[in-house]
Amino acid sequence: MTPQPPQSPQPSRTPRPDPETGAAVKAADRAHVFHSWSAQELIDPLPVAGAGGAYFWDYEGNRYLDFTSGLVFTNIGYQHPRVVAAIQEQAARLTTFAPAFAVAARSEAARLIAERTPGDLDKIFFTNGGAEAVENATRMARLHTGRPKVLSAYRSYHGGTSTAINLTGDPRRWPSDNGSAGVVHFWAPFLYRSPFYAGTEEEERDRALQHLADTIAFEGPGTIAAIVLETVPGTAGIMTPPPGYLAGVRELCDLHGIVLILDEVMAGFGRTGKWFAAEHFDVVPDLLTFAKGVNSGYVPLGGVAISAEIAATFARRPYPGGLTYSGHPLACAAAVATIEVMADEKVVENADRLGTDVLGPGLAALAARHPSVGEVRGMGAFWALELVRDRETREPLVPYNATGEAAAPMAAFGAAAKKHGLWPFINMNRTHVVPPCNLTDEEAAEGLAALDAALTVADEHTV
Amino acid sequence: MTPQPPQSPQPSRTPRPDPETGAAVKAADRAHVFHSWSAQELIDPLPVAGAGGAYFWDYEGNRYLDFTSGLVFTNIGYQHPRVVAAIQEQAARLTTFAPAFAVAARSEAARLIAERTPGDLDKIFFTNGGAEAVENATRMARLHTGRPKVLSAYRSYHGGTSTAINLTGDPRRWPSDNGSAGVVHFWAPFLYRSPFYAGTEEEERDRALQHLADTIAFEGPGTIAAIVLETVPGTAGIMTPPPGYLAGVRELCDLHGIVLILDEVMAGFGRTGKWFAAEHFDVVPDLLTFAKGVNSGYVPLGGVAISAEIAATFARRPYPGGLTYSGHPLACAAAVATIEVMADEKVVENADRLGTDVLGPGLAALAARHPSVGEVRGMGAFWALELVRDRETREPLVPYNATGEAAAPMAAFGAAAKKHGLWPFINMNRTHVVPPCNLTDEEAAEGLAALDAALTVADEHTV
Repeated sequence: MTPQPPQSPQPSRTPRPDPETGAAVKAADRAHVFHSWSAQELIDPLPVAGAGGAYFWDYEGNRYLDFTSGLVFTNIGYQHPRVVAAIQEQAARLTTFAPAFAVAARSEAARLIAERTPGDLDKIFFTNGGAEAVENATRMARLHTGRPKVLSAYRSYHGGTSTAINLTGDPRRWPSDNGSAGVVHFWAPFLYRSPFYAGTEEEERDRALQHLADTIAFEGPGTIAAIVLETVPGTAGIMTPPPGYLAGVRELCDLHGIVLILDEVMAGFGRTGKWFAAEHFDVVPDLLTFAKGVNSGYVPLGGVAISAEIAATFARRPYPGGLTYSGHPLACAAAVATIEVMADEKVVENADRLGTDVLGPGLAALAARHPSVGEVRGMGAFWALELVRDRETREPLVPYNATGEAAAPMAAFGAAAKKHGLWPFINMNRTHVVPPCNLTDEEAAEGLAALDAALTVADEHTV
Repeated sequence: MTPQPPQSPQPSRTPRPDPETGAAVKAADRAHVFHSWSAQELIDPLPVAGAGGAYFWDYEGNRYLDFTSGLVFTNIGYQHPRVVAAIQEQAARLTTFAPAFAVAARSEAARLIAERTPGDLDKIFFTNGGAEAVENATRMARLHTGRPKVLSAYRSYHGGTSTAINLTGDPRRWPSDNGSAGVVHFWAPFLYRSPFYAGTEEEERDRALQHLADTIAFEGPGTIAAIVLETVPGTAGIMTPPPGYLAGVRELCDLHGIVLILDEVMAGFGRTGKWFAAEHFDVVPDLLTFAKGVNSGYVPLGGVAISAEIAATFARRPYPGGLTYSGHPLACAAAVATIEVMADEKVVENADRLGTDVLGPGLAALAARHPSVGEVRGMGAFWALELVRDRETREPLVPYNATGEAAAPMAAFGAAAKKHGLWPFINMNRTHVVPPCNLTDEEAAEGLAALDAALTVADEHTV
């Protein structure tokens, strides 16, 4: 495998078969790489030879259309030549420098992000990823308010470090639940599986807000530092909140002096068809966490955008948090180039159009044809298909947190998608359609056709 | 500032003055960058224009010899051309890819690290930095043992996320102490300020081990998942443990089924004159955390090296931890190149020789001349000078955790060093000498001369 600099704006999509190297890569992986969220002997990691745009390929010559964007981070696709060039240039100039200094790429990334974040969220604290962003946002909120508790929602994911995983509302939290103090979970709106027995979006919104108000009242408003919500929950199911819900949460926060943290690690940077998902709901949080799309994951980077009021708390009093690579120059240079590419190539606008004109209608058409599709929901390049055994009862195609045989119907669906050249995102009984935000209509059509074929397999498991 | 690829193995050391750009960089920094561990309005970040080898420079043409290695991470210095080239090549090939796949750079980095870690620590879980490494190591230990508590030492630093900061034994922990469960602090050996009233290294070792055995007995051996120790504590003061101490800790762990986690985020990858500091003490931990030197901080990367026994726990049961950028290809490619450079250029051997032949004797000579130096300790490229008001009483030059006026003597020392072209590492009443591990003898002599001048200022504050 000879490294090749990108030659043109169109990334190379030629598979480079090299079975011998693929076998070596896999052998070393199996001998030495310990993988995230996995039983190490029960996984079979595919050796990846290369990637470009919305595609990647293995050493055997198989090419896949990536409807996962990695882990929902390659918002501009793989190997965008301008961002690759920016990384190469920053590497030549100043690849790393300690956080206490002013560095051009760090300053410029902060400026470009602050220009785009809502309201007065104009100070940027950089981290290496989303988990650390959530860790630091909750620390800021606790110190700003002097209060201990943080409220977060079931059906959420906020990261893998201690506070971030305790805030998380999915089963990945359970094994780390060894005495977290100060985290309280509540239920957010989700009409399709309403925790509030609601029949309409308005009812779901009103009951969810009443539930949150009641939870605040019974936890003690003066004990609550922050409410943390994904603006649009991601891995947990892409449940777009009903109109007015987030504004209502903002009101409750204002009423009680609670900090509103919106987690846009997954939803931010174009994913929903806006720079930040909060724009859809006309809500400005006090803290906004980001990562992933900020530089398409080309170099690890995350951060917190901070309101003027919270920044003022730490103007003359030290902020007690930090990390060695805060504002890493190489990561920041990749963010600068990514944001410029997104602006110049209208990537955010493309995600919006794609959702409205292509993916939305296309997925609705699939739902009409396939009894296994219980609901399609989403916006932009951020969609979920809820797969069910029975549309009437809405029984999931596989049980909550199923593994092994119990999860076989979803595994069969996934295998069928791959057979048709599509790499799907699967979580429990859902498949998410989360391709790069600069996906073309032709690529979307190719992916929808593969989904069509794979859903036929899912249909076999309906009642 | 035109980015320039490196032209030769000798990095450019020409300052590139550009006051106008420097002002712009600083203005955007002050407007938008929220800095680690700082009161935002009380800091004055120096705009950095460039760096090469052991030096960096500002936009005014001032050049500094960096005795901090950033934050003790540029073990091969700034802008090593081979590592810069490797980053550029990996960027062109495959800058990012999701963690569930086998990727050449990831496999190769894991293999090269596993070849160097002690004993059977042959599985590598990659993170973005040291804090996440410690978070995951403690999670592994708790799940492996089924026990809740983790013991760590006062005078330590383990990272900024929730568990890592709770384990930390310095004042940076205090503001985050809001209800951590399961962390217990004990006292590690430190003869110069002995918690055990010991007079010799042997006595300090024996009493420290007795103290730890007693603490284990009173906490309940069956409740303790892990003991976490920096092999040689770093930011807290570079206190080399007395011979036999770590072997004694290993014995206590074995006796009680406790996992031994050695944190080598700062001490690893050549810093002490060995690949890993544990080699000095003939101790093999069950888990070893690393970051920083693994790729000289050129791209954010950290990780945990895992023993065969602990890896087996997660062979058929999922490991419940992970992160989006685990095993990031660009970071791993930088690690591969850094490790190859360190091997080819005998960087580890250089650190060893430097400590024994140059820095050790040179710092001892400074101590003989300057009454403000209470103790010199360390090895390799990892040294601390304990500055005191009074050599007899060992009263620190500034009080523990001093700020503002109380810390003025150390600030005066720092300013004097900078005036002489040296950027010093300062923590409380200490200055650490932690230059790149490939420092030349000439650079060491230059730094020692600047320290000599700066210590004259410190001497003015002795009794």
